[in-house]
Amino acid sequence: MNEQIRVGILGYGNLGRGVELALRMHADMRLVAFFTRRDPATIRTLSPKVPVYHVDQVLQMKDEIDVLVLCGGSATDLPVQSPEYAKYFNIVDSFDTHAKIPEHFANCDKSAKAGGKIALISVGWDPGMFSLQRVLGNALLPQGKDYTFWGKGVSQGHSDAIRRIEGVKDAKQYTIPVPEALDRVRAGENPDLTTRQKHTRECFVVAQEGADLARIEQEIVTMPNYFADYDTTVHFITQEELQRDHSGIPHGGFVMRSGVTGVNGETPQMIEYSLRLGSNPEFTACVLACYARAACRMNRDGLCGAKTVFDVAPAYLSAMSGEEMRKKLL
Amino acid sequence: MNEQIRVGILGYGNLGRGVELALRMHADMRLVAFFTRRDPATIRTLSPKVPVYHVDQVLQMKDEIDVLVLCGGSATDLPVQSPEYAKYFNIVDSFDTHAKIPEHFANCDKSAKAGGKIALISVGWDPGMFSLQRVLGNALLPQGKDYTFWGKGVSQGHSDAIRRIEGVKDAKQYTIPVPEALDRVRAGENPDLTTRQKHTRECFVVAQEGADLARIEQEIVTMPNYFADYDTTVHFITQEELQRDHSGIPHGGFVMRSGVTGVNGETPQMIEYSLRLGSNPEFTACVLACYARAACRMNRDGLCGAKTVFDVAPAYLSAMSGEEMRKKLL
Repeated sequence: MNEQIRVGILGYGNLGRGVELALRMHADMRLVAFFTRRDPATIRTLSPKVPVYHVDQVLQMKDEIDVLVLCGGSATDLPVQSPEYAKYFNIVDSFDTHAKIPEHFANCDKSAKAGGKIALISVGWDPGMFSLQRVLGNALLPQGKDYTFWGKGVSQGHSDAIRRIEGVKDAKQYTIPVPEALDRVRAGENPDLTTRQKHTRECFVVAQEGADLARIEQEIVTMPNYFADYDTTVHFITQEELQRDHSGIPHGGFVMRSGVTGVNGETPQMIEYSLRLGSNPEFTACVLACYARAACRMNRDGLCGAKTVFDVAPAYLSAMSGEEMRKKLL
Repeated sequence: MNEQIRVGILGYGNLGRGVELALRMHADMRLVAFFTRRDPATIRTLSPKVPVYHVDQVLQMKDEIDVLVLCGGSATDLPVQSPEYAKYFNIVDSFDTHAKIPEHFANCDKSAKAGGKIALISVGWDPGMFSLQRVLGNALLPQGKDYTFWGKGVSQGHSDAIRRIEGVKDAKQYTIPVPEALDRVRAGENPDLTTRQKHTRECFVVAQEGADLARIEQEIVTMPNYFADYDTTVHFITQEELQRDHSGIPHGGFVMRSGVTGVNGETPQMIEYSLRLGSNPEFTACVLACYARAACRMNRDGLCGAKTVFDVAPAYLSAMSGEEMRKKLL
């Protein structure tokens, strides 16, 4: 067994806290420091013995940290942080702006290679575990069709969009796969599904006193990109109800590969992967923790550069030895 | 793109035929020869242009084959063939005698390292894809429980056991997961399930004329190891009905990881992977085909020795380039 993997967490929001908790489940990893852009004195973590530093101090910890888990956002944090810190640390991030992944990969690859480090990007469940299942499904069943459904779960972006409407005090939006669509895919129909046929959207809205509820509802259901292409339901509830019934951040979804084999494609074959997550950030954090282990081990094995979940042999993710894995899990 | 991968198939039963068909779906691979222990002149393949040789000639093809897919059985063929041919070829096998995997791995490792080749063993769906999901589930959710259910599908071993009973002309046995057990796992109950609670067994039996049906049924349901620990149903049908309704070899199953995260394990997290296979050997063959690609590529990258699905980075399985995969599937 190699010595313990020393982990740093950069950014202490829901995701950073999730990584903090996830690391407690892995005896071969040890959290050594938090880094924040806020005043470190204002951060209350769940690990009072682990120091919180300002992000400006991170390079001073270069030799104390084997892998840095970046827990910032994809919009503005990670495009800067990942390439910057990949020069000095093995890093893992959850970059999820799909269209910009090639650029982000190239930037991280350059830095990580210059520094002789691993930059493992776009790690989470989608992109991440779902992507991995898509690669497997496509490779195993080349004659087939991919389906990804999300939910039931809270979409932060859509919830935010509702909150920006005049007269809205608070809101939570759930993305829900249409059961009939799932059933048709499972039945091997290989349907072409429109956006509307795949998901519905359900909104729980707390309106300000005296607000025009009909107008708010209309603004939501007609909102381009976010809601106009979906069947959207709006429920007005009280702040107390929102707090009581909708304070969690559940999510999940389905990746299906519906394919055929045989002499003339006469044999149906179906692969389905699904997640039902009590907490989206806590699960994403679990994925990040395992890939942090992998990043460190791959680097110890002499590898460097940008990587994704596609490049990581599953054995790198597990704390078990090869022997133990083959004995217990093969 | 590297040149086409040249594949040999050793053994032409259901599995060999499945690999033959699977390779047709992969433009970067080419089937160059079949090898058989039977008289090659008696073998009718689906690929008249591909030569069929006696297995004694396989070493003469050493330089014409990049990877040899071994399609023999785990009982007596693979324990001998895999270590033997791994000295000369990259090989892939579907060795599935669980208790003997460590020994088989060690034997193959020695040969493959001596020959500078890759021996990718125990490839299929269980062991194989299910094992991979178990490793992922265990790594992602260390506080959790594994569940594997098989079926609904045909168990060859159990069908054979019935056929050995006096008075039985033919038989087919289905293994079926108990729906209530699946539901309890999905509900996050983390139940401890007995053998009987997890699966039922359904048998379709063609009896010889005048046979004592009550005795046959009794012999089946009380058979130790095979049926005694299960709720088993026996249906007597005609040979025509067996042929008409039960000639397929469907299978499938479920791998679930039921875990928790959070400060005190308060957050339930559920991962479920399932297969619904129209043909067990055709799907297993699809898995072998992709891992044949991987074995060859890993060897081109300088790796050698025995490997399992745990050691193979997903990117090795796909014909796509890294760029294409990141763009389309991440």
